[in-house]
Amino acid sequence: MEAYERLAAEGLIRSRPGSGFFVAAPLAPLSLAEIGPKLEREVDPLWISRQALEAEDAVLKPGCGWLPPGWMPEEGLRRGLRALARGNAATLVDYGPPLGLLPLRQLLARRLAQRGIEASPEQILLTESGTQAIDLLCRFLLKPGDVVLVDDPCYFNFLALLRAHQAEIVAVPHTPTGPDIGAFAEALSVHRPRLYITNSALHNPTGATLAPLVAHRLLKLADQSGLTIIEDDIFADFEETPAPRLAAFDGIERVVHIGSFSKALSAAMRCGFVVAPRNWIEPLADLKIATSFGGTGFSAALMLTLLKDGSYRKHMEAVRGRLARAMAETAVKLERIGITPWLEPQAGMFLWCRLPDGIDAAGLARKALARNIVLAPGNAFSPAQTASGFLRFNVAQCQDERLFRELASLMD
Amino acid sequence: MEAYERLAAEGLIRSRPGSGFFVAAPLAPLSLAEIGPKLEREVDPLWISRQALEAEDAVLKPGCGWLPPGWMPEEGLRRGLRALARGNAATLVDYGPPLGLLPLRQLLARRLAQRGIEASPEQILLTESGTQAIDLLCRFLLKPGDVVLVDDPCYFNFLALLRAHQAEIVAVPHTPTGPDIGAFAEALSVHRPRLYITNSALHNPTGATLAPLVAHRLLKLADQSGLTIIEDDIFADFEETPAPRLAAFDGIERVVHIGSFSKALSAAMRCGFVVAPRNWIEPLADLKIATSFGGTGFSAALMLTLLKDGSYRKHMEAVRGRLARAMAETAVKLERIGITPWLEPQAGMFLWCRLPDGIDAAGLARKALARNIVLAPGNAFSPAQTASGFLRFNVAQCQDERLFRELASLMD
Repeated sequence: MEAYERLAAEGLIRSRPGSGFFVAAPLAPLSLAEIGPKLEREVDPLWISRQALEAEDAVLKPGCGWLPPGWMPEEGLRRGLRALARGNAATLVDYGPPLGLLPLRQLLARRLAQRGIEASPEQILLTESGTQAIDLLCRFLLKPGDVVLVDDPCYFNFLALLRAHQAEIVAVPHTPTGPDIGAFAEALSVHRPRLYITNSALHNPTGATLAPLVAHRLLKLADQSGLTIIEDDIFADFEETPAPRLAAFDGIERVVHIGSFSKALSAAMRCGFVVAPRNWIEPLADLKIATSFGGTGFSAALMLTLLKDGSYRKHMEAVRGRLARAMAETAVKLERIGITPWLEPQAGMFLWCRLPDGIDAAGLARKALARNIVLAPGNAFSPAQTASGFLRFNVAQCQDERLFRELASLMD
Repeated sequence: MEAYERLAAEGLIRSRPGSGFFVAAPLAPLSLAEIGPKLEREVDPLWISRQALEAEDAVLKPGCGWLPPGWMPEEGLRRGLRALARGNAATLVDYGPPLGLLPLRQLLARRLAQRGIEASPEQILLTESGTQAIDLLCRFLLKPGDVVLVDDPCYFNFLALLRAHQAEIVAVPHTPTGPDIGAFAEALSVHRPRLYITNSALHNPTGATLAPLVAHRLLKLADQSGLTIIEDDIFADFEETPAPRLAAFDGIERVVHIGSFSKALSAAMRCGFVVAPRNWIEPLADLKIATSFGGTGFSAALMLTLLKDGSYRKHMEAVRGRLARAMAETAVKLERIGITPWLEPQAGMFLWCRLPDGIDAAGLARKALARNIVLAPGNAFSPAQTASGFLRFNVAQCQDERLFRELASLMD
């Protein structure tokens, strides 16, 4: 009986009166909110994502990472859907081939070549999203406890994803031209990471662009240490002047390249892709089949339709123009209330901004939520928590004057 | 130098002439084809899936697990697409809420209630597919090395999925009324599994149906040992007479219930769901956001449209009728060439059949592939490799007389 009592006190067994003692529920399931660092929820990636995803239209969302519905290619999507509704039956019902729709992979290969990235369609695997592409690579390459390098700051969902893989996250300070190379080299030698995840162009959240010199040094360091680099390029088509891509310099050996249509075309039609070394594609496809069976089916066909009919090019030209104007206007309005961009990005939707001295971004975000405004405080993006005075603004979501009035009022 | 040579011999470093010694590539990535049991490829789940997914229309596919395009609700899908093409813009572009489209979850809750399964919409999480739903649960509940019980035989992609989770698989012999309860109890006590994955109705591959008595005993055993049961119900709407569901008896405590629209509506529009205990839904949603960010967006809206307009019910009625006829005809034609069903399922697409004595199913599958026929040999479904003389036939894919002529000829 005493043994039972001790086991019960430890929660390993429990007593069911009249029945006896039974083994208690097993180890806690993988609750991401409970593992990982104890963060204020305002800087917890998962909580911010929830706020942004659940927010109704009336809620201002300068902290979210996507364009408002009015900026998306609605007419093109409607037209594409009607075309597929009239088209081939197999497109409507089939799983599709393991690597994904071949004509789309061929088109992607041509588009990648225009950016200097040499890859055959057989090196491209379609996925449900850019995030799923990175997730597949993490499943493929990481064991729990492996070290992964990220930028400080970096896209906050990388941190949630890496938490799901129980990776040890090491952050390297980011500069306006890419990671701090000295700090990067030191991180490699001290931590021996397996992976580095980054964006070369239109870095999320800073808007920085990788300089060729930094790219070259990065690749040399990666080569010497056996590092794999995941280059997340989901904002590729938001650039005006294409910046160098690690995948272009490297030729898809150390660098794996990720893309997606969620930001530019539609987040509702799920389609992304990974460009990987030839001998990785088969095992990655096996992993995809084992864990989600089917491919991208219909979405891929829709993406192909939109890419081929010429409407995509015109659409992105218009989006880039709108974003450039929105960025200029937003920077001015923010500076008027004492919020200053860390750098002026060459394109894209994000402004990474410093708040006036003494203002804590997480605290500001908490108060803003009570006024129906979802902000993205800096420390959500910073594993080293070095960004307590920063906010990331999505300039396409900063068109309502109320935002600046409320921010000014909250900061007083 | 000798130290370098030993390290190089072990493959830990490699010499680059003129440069020096460098750390070699790290541990092999997770190649599913390389880990796990060394199987002939004819009985490797991943290889069979590839053959089936890559097979062109002219290839006969009695080994695949889906209906031919001509059996799917093509007109309804076209109509649904046209309706959404005219509809709400947000549906076309938005990520959607974290748990997935609420009206669809509400409709699913009502349909589940009709089958005796009590769950609120807040206990339902939409996923990209049934497989992804199970994968999320595995990420949530399993650590590498954990034991998972499956039926012998079971759906072969479960084996590939569990390989990706590095689970230890223990198979329990299946009877016409569910798992062998004596063997099940012994497996629980010897192996202390974390999870059991099964289908209650229209068991894949045998077509068996869980009897109420077995269901009840199963749940008592699960309760005593803290086992979680995943009830994969992706063929739910293929039943004529609803069999008991574990989720109905249990009330979503030990049992997690999975569904999907891939088999009945479309494999190209990706939409499945998981019904889980209330306190698991949030962490599961976190995992889904972390690893694939967006939800089911557009597909969910399309599924809702088809479910609500009444066309789905009529469609499935017709499918069930066609399958019943196809099953009767196929059973007769198979028996004529000496291939006999292990049991006569009450519904569904599968016939699990014994080959004439001495014929090896894997060998037959190899020869059949050379004649453009994709078969599903028994040992692909059997972790214990107890089914070398069995094949699973999809009766909807057995309409071509060539199949029976070729099989007869190959077996001579």
